[in-house]
Amino acid sequence: MTGKFIVIEGLEGAGKSTAIKQVTRVLAEHGISDITSTREPGGTPLAEQMRKLVKEGHPDEPLTDMAELLLLYAARSQLVENVIKPALSGGHWVVGDRHDMSSQAYQGGGRGFNQTVMAQLRDTVLGDFRPDFTIYMDIDPVVGLERARGRGELDRIEKMNIDFFHRTRARFLELAEQDPRVVIIDAGQSLEKVTADITDALEQWLERQ
Amino acid sequence: MTGKFIVIEGLEGAGKSTAIKQVTRVLAEHGISDITSTREPGGTPLAEQMRKLVKEGHPDEPLTDMAELLLLYAARSQLVENVIKPALSGGHWVVGDRHDMSSQAYQGGGRGFNQTVMAQLRDTVLGDFRPDFTIYMDIDPVVGLERARGRGELDRIEKMNIDFFHRTRARFLELAEQDPRVVIIDAGQSLEKVTADITDALEQWLERQ
Repeated sequence: MTGKFIVIEGLEGAGKSTAIKQVTRVLAEHGISDITSTREPGGTPLAEQMRKLVKEGHPDEPLTDMAELLLLYAARSQLVENVIKPALSGGHWVVGDRHDMSSQAYQGGGRGFNQTVMAQLRDTVLGDFRPDFTIYMDIDPVVGLERARGRGELDRIEKMNIDFFHRTRARFLELAEQDPRVVIIDAGQSLEKVTADITDALEQWLERQ
Repeated sequence: MTGKFIVIEGLEGAGKSTAIKQVTRVLAEHGISDITSTREPGGTPLAEQMRKLVKEGHPDEPLTDMAELLLLYAARSQLVENVIKPALSGGHWVVGDRHDMSSQAYQGGGRGFNQTVMAQLRDTVLGDFRPDFTIYMDIDPVVGLERARGRGELDRIEKMNIDFFHRTRARFLELAEQDPRVVIIDAGQSLEKVTADITDALEQWLERQ
């Protein structure tokens, strides 16, 4: 039996890591313990090198928005073909820290690439491959970035101005509302409430499988 | 006045380097000496890092054909935006060792990506930016690879089987025949004849400018 692909999405500081831990815990309680964890961009030797280019850029040369977008999809191609699909075929479940929705939101919403380009690129690279279930952790960017800053130095993308993150969040919400395979969690609540909401949403989805 | 963008294309061992030297010499004789030379993939600090991923891959992980294609376009975006366009705007002429036609031929023809995908990607990344003049050095792949092998160790792409290069050459020829801005040079002739043909073709084109 093939496994399922569950993705956690959200802005910096939305609590994705906490959500991933809770998802893994709930899956274990349901007897699902063959789990492959991934993170994007990255998650394979080559994809991690592409991630580095996106996150660090180069001191003497700006990374174009277009090259950033293409590197993210190149990294995604590596991860999907070399890790995610083989894991699913082998019966593993895959829990992903970000996937395509992040590109749609950050590059489509934040950077402003038009939706035709974003859809063409997604379909060209991924075909009809999509996550089975996505948990979108919704947070006000002001709150999220404050939390992320508390964790240390910001990378090239985390240094963008706040409007970029407001556009990104708006696109995340728009996509989440259109897609029945996405659940929205209010990540601005207390840790207990967030954890309870994730558990409820995941258990409801598991019952339907 | 903006400069012009001249590109030399062709398979491994077609004599591109010799052609580039001859083009530069002819341009100099016509009083054009502000020349920026580029090579693809690469030609900027970030694009060279992407080139390295394409050329070397990784010992523990195959580079997907899709990631290869996207890396080539990411590198092209860096080079066009950060080097070629600024040079042209500043009145420099640009002489390029490969450009988009190589992707159309190697990835479209050789790897077999369909023409819709190849055209979408080209238009998304480059808009309507195209070389002013392209010299395609046509060579039988058997002859070309024999020459290239004489130069030393082959990279990841040069190790492909001969059918790959026959498909690549066929697409090069197809594209060259469709585009009035491309001239085909028979690179299988003697060095003297090849040099004379390049000189004639370039001088005829220069007269029309």
